[in-house]
Amino acid sequence: MVQLGTNRYGKAEVRLVHVARGAGPSGEDLLRDWNISSSLAGDLAGSHLTGSNANVYPTDSQKNKAYALAKELGGDVPPETFAIEFGSFFVSSQEPITRARIAIEEYGWNAIGATGFSFARSGDLVRTTVVHVDATAGVSVVSGLKDLTVLNTTASEFWGYPKDGYTTLPETKDRILATSVNASWRFLPSAASAGTDWDAAFAAAQGVVLATFASTYSYSLQQTLYAIGTALIEEVPSVCEVRLALPNKHHYIVDLTPFGLENDREVYLAGDRPYGLIEGTVLADDAPDAGIAWD
Amino acid sequence: MVQLGTNRYGKAEVRLVHVARGAGPSGEDLLRDWNISSSLAGDLAGSHLTGSNANVYPTDSQKNKAYALAKELGGDVPPETFAIEFGSFFVSSQEPITRARIAIEEYGWNAIGATGFSFARSGDLVRTTVVHVDATAGVSVVSGLKDLTVLNTTASEFWGYPKDGYTTLPETKDRILATSVNASWRFLPSAASAGTDWDAAFAAAQGVVLATFASTYSYSLQQTLYAIGTALIEEVPSVCEVRLALPNKHHYIVDLTPFGLENDREVYLAGDRPYGLIEGTVLADDAPDAGIAWD
Amino acid sequence: MVQLGTNRYGKAEVRLVHVARGAGPSGEDLLRDWNISSSLAGDLAGSHLTGSNANVYPTDSQKNKAYALAKELGGDVPPETFAIEFGSFFVSSQEPITRARIAIEEYGWNAIGATGFSFARSGDLVRTTVVHVDATAGVSVVSGLKDLTVLNTTASEFWGYPKDGYTTLPETKDRILATSVNASWRFLPSAASAGTDWDAAFAAAQGVVLATFASTYSYSLQQTLYAIGTALIEEVPSVCEVRLALPNKHHYIVDLTPFGLENDREVYLAGDRPYGLIEGTVLADDAPDAGIAWD
Amino acid sequence: MVQLGTNRYGKAEVRLVHVARGAGPSGEDLLRDWNISSSLAGDLAGSHLTGSNANVYPTDSQKNKAYALAKELGGDVPPETFAIEFGSFFVSSQEPITRARIAIEEYGWNAIGATGFSFARSGDLVRTTVVHVDATAGVSVVSGLKDLTVLNTTASEFWGYPKDGYTTLPETKDRILATSVNASWRFLPSAASAGTDWDAAFAAAQGVVLATFASTYSYSLQQTLYAIGTALIEEVPSVCEVRLALPNKHHYIVDLTPFGLENDREVYLAGDRPYGLIEGTVLADDAPDAGIAWD
Repeated sequence: MVQLGTNRYGKAEVRLVHVARGAGPSGEDLLRDWNISSSLAGDLAGSHLTGSNANVYPTDSQKNKAYALAKELGGDVPPETFAIEFGSFFVSSQEPITRARIAIEEYGWNAIGATGFSFARSGDLVRTTVVHVDATAGVSVVSGLKDLTVLNTTASEFWGYPKDGYTTLPETKDRILATSVNASWRFLPSAASAGTDWDAAFAAAQGVVLATFASTYSYSLQQTLYAIGTALIEEVPSVCEVRLALPNKHHYIVDLTPFGLENDREVYLAGDRPYGLIEGTVLADDAPDAGIAWD
Repeated sequence: MVQLGTNRYGKAEVRLVHVARGAGPSGEDLLRDWNISSSLAGDLAGSHLTGSNANVYPTDSQKNKAYALAKELGGDVPPETFAIEFGSFFVSSQEPITRARIAIEEYGWNAIGATGFSFARSGDLVRTTVVHVDATAGVSVVSGLKDLTVLNTTASEFWGYPKDGYTTLPETKDRILATSVNASWRFLPSAASAGTDWDAAFAAAQGVVLATFASTYSYSLQQTLYAIGTALIEEVPSVCEVRLALPNKHHYIVDLTPFGLENDREVYLAGDRPYGLIEGTVLADDAPDAGIAWD
Repeated sequence: MVQLGTNRYGKAEVRLVHVARGAGPSGEDLLRDWNISSSLAGDLAGSHLTGSNANVYPTDSQKNKAYALAKELGGDVPPETFAIEFGSFFVSSQEPITRARIAIEEYGWNAIGATGFSFARSGDLVRTTVVHVDATAGVSVVSGLKDLTVLNTTASEFWGYPKDGYTTLPETKDRILATSVNASWRFLPSAASAGTDWDAAFAAAQGVVLATFASTYSYSLQQTLYAIGTALIEEVPSVCEVRLALPNKHHYIVDLTPFGLENDREVYLAGDRPYGLIEGTVLADDAPDAGIAWD
Repeated sequence: MVQLGTNRYGKAEVRLVHVARGAGPSGEDLLRDWNISSSLAGDLAGSHLTGSNANVYPTDSQKNKAYALAKELGGDVPPETFAIEFGSFFVSSQEPITRARIAIEEYGWNAIGATGFSFARSGDLVRTTVVHVDATAGVSVVSGLKDLTVLNTTASEFWGYPKDGYTTLPETKDRILATSVNASWRFLPSAASAGTDWDAAFAAAQGVVLATFASTYSYSLQQTLYAIGTALIEEVPSVCEVRLALPNKHHYIVDLTPFGLENDREVYLAGDRPYGLIEGTVLADDAPDAGIAWD
């Protein structure tokens, strides 16, 4: 005897580029380049058990709504705003659907020169947001960034760790510290209704990540993680929780002594695999319960 | 005021190939080709807050232990057995470490001819396992497979769904159904101590996934998902819960009428993005609480 | 003062799946799963210099023709046959186009059970063909395979190489030899008109690659490369030239002595980067000039 | 009867990061982040035919030399300079080796703040160089960039192309034009000995690519390609030939009329596959023969 457990379905990776023509401060075009995924939950047992699609709002219609909504909202809209509207549409219009999860990746573009219509992909990071709209619990917003690769050539040590029969790593008072930041920050539940400036919040967060990584003298990547999480909560309004996953992208000092050369912190091998992986959460002391925000 | 929340750290993607020389039934070599990730949790606040690494068993030592353990265990060992031993090592030897999560991907190889030492990568799927060893809660085992791409050229319909102003998809009584199966199945807590034949369980599960996909006349991918989950629980001993994530890999019938041709279910465009994504859980009615198994 | 040099344009990566319903020997469906790229050359200076598209057969029409041609040819058609017809269409119907290059990747599928309509991706290799159709030079066919990963656990040595101040590699009389075979074989010009059985030729070639890799006792990957090329020419009718690119996928024996363990050819680290890369050509003594075949 | 044709071998994808400590104008560190591949040719028949490695300078030693050379050259060295020295080492020190091909990818980093040791990956493009050092023909240098994604929201038309029974594409007087620039430029043979400022040449070339893409009103991507190639030759000293491969990254205007909405050049679907692919060469009228530069 079996039963159906948690389930959801949707359309993944809808690629949408919106051009807000002439909407910039100097009359230039503004771009939003998104990869949108919607996922719906609710009264969906029928589709699993009997093959009835009576409650299954088609993923094709979800895609259509994404493109239509971009037109309906117009202008230069932050991904968080779009996601809240997009998720609310399903929950409010489809009676069997009680929860929507909307995830958006935003890719950055920089202006080329002064044409007002020419752009180059920035490529340094991906901006993210995951919004839940729940018929009961309301709206939650988790935003973040990923693939932001940063490196300090010094100001990193690693020593004082337990040794046993499997220890071959020498302690070091100076190493390269490099990681690819994957960070998500949860906003207070009030943020969605409080007119939060999502673009400003993102810009602030990105600045905090970069500045904190650079300014933290690090005895372990865990310490850097905690410093970044703390700074995000302290400096970005409405953020109450931060989750970070930081791969330790090892840069190995190359032993050049077989070739009669001294390698004074100059030549490194950038390793692919394996890598360390440091995962951690930092919360404001008064952070409300996360509810479904991280589902 | 902030606080440290959930955290863990480890070494990711240790690539290990083990050759059990002459261990096969005809004296042939047997290969295990693994990608191993370990992740440890426990009393790790110091490394985050003060930079003390006194409790941080180095990820480099974790890697070393993986290679050593492969030698210590010897023979032709299933990934589940290895993961349980590997995770137990950390929890039993490192006092501050109270939980270990071990994830292994196994890549398949088939013999070439009869040399006994020649192999070709099978490439049709990746076998997976995630094992938690917890000082209090004990051992949990979740195994699975991913990237198993399957396709039915018929026996799939999709109709009877809600229509609204965003509906453009025509109903269909015949379509290609294709997906890339990502399945994970949780074993009963007793499995780890009961001498489960992990390789046999995997072979059975793979067979069930293929056979059920082929034999299910499908009115939606949700229905196929539920059928696969049900069959896995019913036919694979000790499995009490199954989680599936099935991308609906759309194959669009190409409209050839502009070229004066009829396309009678013959020529399709295989789409990349967007795709549907169907996620669901099937549980045995008497499945015990999952605890940390899915962390 | 500048001038336009060699140029071509086309549509890349047209994803086409053809179902030959009931065409198999037992009435089962047969699948062809292709990734098709067409590239046209000829009198195209205008599009570069003045922006005139009078001679530019649209890449969108190239895509349309691909889907239409699959229907027109029907049945279970080898990629080589399709490519010759596809390329000939452009050269014969578009006066300014004097040469077409058609490249096809074919992905393999195996039957699941006996439904006749259920399949699983094989995943072990990609079959390839590159066909040129030239208004003057005629038709050339180069077929091949890629991503076929093979491994011998023994029967491989490497020693006797030059030593200098940069030598740290120890000589070995036993190592794992692994590579991912990328092979292309050129058919005699007569093959296209001689009713070559392309599927049989591919099956034979694949068999030769596997068998030769397994049976060659190897003192270097170069030696294995030459053996494979030689066998392909000798055993596959109409093949006159073979080009191979073989990455040496290093498997490093792990030093377990720091842990008090002996590693007797048992535990290996499978490296990603760097890797060796061995490229070479083997030709029949009477191979005609390749002309444009490898462009 | 078969014979060995063209062949070469080497070490691919050696990952090397060089830190020139304090070498910047304000005493900041300077980074070079490279992916280096070396490939050697010469008297190598023995390794193919008899398994003799007497002439095979090991790929492991090639890797070692790369790391050693980075130390030997020191400072903040352009990839072209490194590649010339690296290739020359093999040809001058190994009698059987008569030609070396060195390829380097360089990844960009930007300073974070003013620490002098903190960096973030730029991610907008990859700088490339391919250098041949030949015992007879001397040194050739081809540099370039790849993965530079650019987009004009307007100033692009496509019409006036041939129509036939496979035409479904409507003509357009306004479309998004987007591509990922892959460009390679060949320097005059004298450049290597003439003290060329390789970093300045690259910066100039990158600027030309961006500016020309933005400023070219385009009737086809071919026209844009020719404009970029022409500008590179005219504006970057010592460049005599340019090769470009430009995927036409289609952005499809989404038809919103089924939803009662007008889409006035606002909402686009960014397609993955298929894509157009435009390849072309632009040469200075007095460009010397390329010889082996493009091998």
